[in-house]
Amino acid sequence: MLKLFYSPGSCATASHIALEEAGAEYELQLVKLGERQQRTPEYLKINPKGRVPALATDRGVLTENPAILAWIAQTWPEANLAPLDDPFAFAEMQAFNAFLCATVHPTFAHKFRPYRYADDPAAHVAMAAKVPATLDEHFALVESRLADGRPWVFGDYSVADPYLYIFARWYQRDGMGHPEQRPRVRAHIRRMQERPAVRRALEQEGLPLI
Amino acid sequence: MLKLFYSPGSCATASHIALEEAGAEYELQLVKLGERQQRTPEYLKINPKGRVPALATDRGVLTENPAILAWIAQTWPEANLAPLDDPFAFAEMQAFNAFLCATVHPTFAHKFRPYRYADDPAAHVAMAAKVPATLDEHFALVESRLADGRPWVFGDYSVADPYLYIFARWYQRDGMGHPEQRPRVRAHIRRMQERPAVRRALEQEGLPLI
Repeated sequence: MLKLFYSPGSCATASHIALEEAGAEYELQLVKLGERQQRTPEYLKINPKGRVPALATDRGVLTENPAILAWIAQTWPEANLAPLDDPFAFAEMQAFNAFLCATVHPTFAHKFRPYRYADDPAAHVAMAAKVPATLDEHFALVESRLADGRPWVFGDYSVADPYLYIFARWYQRDGMGHPEQRPRVRAHIRRMQERPAVRRALEQEGLPLI
Repeated sequence: MLKLFYSPGSCATASHIALEEAGAEYELQLVKLGERQQRTPEYLKINPKGRVPALATDRGVLTENPAILAWIAQTWPEANLAPLDDPFAFAEMQAFNAFLCATVHPTFAHKFRPYRYADDPAAHVAMAAKVPATLDEHFALVESRLADGRPWVFGDYSVADPYLYIFARWYQRDGMGHPEQRPRVRAHIRRMQERPAVRRALEQEGLPLI
């Protein structure tokens, strides 16, 4: 059976929601980031990068949300989680997910995990100081992406939506930047939280609605 | 016709090589990063993120190397640039490309574009100081990925190879870290530079072999 290595409320929750949306059979394996379990020899055998999510399958382990999310969409095509028959639309979705993975997530990491980028505590302060304005720029792009009144990032619901939801939660929750200036992002959060699959995943991780 | 917005030797060169490998018809459009052309109003209409690459198609503009590379592989399936009929193998390739995009590339950016992450010049110095050791960690993972003697990142050549090549070039060229401790990465560079498609792309961009 599939096993998702996750930490509650981390970016792994995006893959967790997608598994619920797909109706997949899987089990959850908690990795306690606060206890640095992602750096233990046991976990590094599963994911040498020492990060969550990791998804153990009967073929081997997959890592990186954009790859896991696309794999879930391709493996459960009846769940309609990606435009699988249209390479251009699929690439647009993957581009959005790459933006979240490579630009938005690293911006948060400069606040939450600054030791990845510098050893000097003064540099950590300087990096954290820049995060709110940079997040506002990122979410201005997301807001304009949602601008034509559509409920989801692309026309139909896709795995881009749970992935966005995680970072929108962080943005909303942490009071960095000006999430109140992004009403369409806020509306996206609300729509996500009306979905049964999202509620199940949040409940399993012990996360509140926001 | 396709138009690739690029800067010589930037990460856009990965998509450029893939277009050559596919035998695609396309034209190149230089974006002078040194003159900040990627932030002009004209270019921001093409890619609001202000980055290269961007690939203009008759359906619209694609951005982000992992998405563009997969689209090229899907659009020219006869070029055999990805395991298109095996979702698990495709996801492994996408995971590797996500690692390059979201982890390896941002590490270089802390040296080359530290103003993205902090305003304080002292913080720029602190970030740059950490880059060599972090790159060594990333390329240790790549070295182990190449460890069983296979010529390419995955069994067959794929779009993961030109994408790796760009960052391996940077690692080799800039004298940060210890590329001499990564002989398989160096051998990968040499194998890439024997490919006619790679040589054509380098020549078009005015880039030397390394």
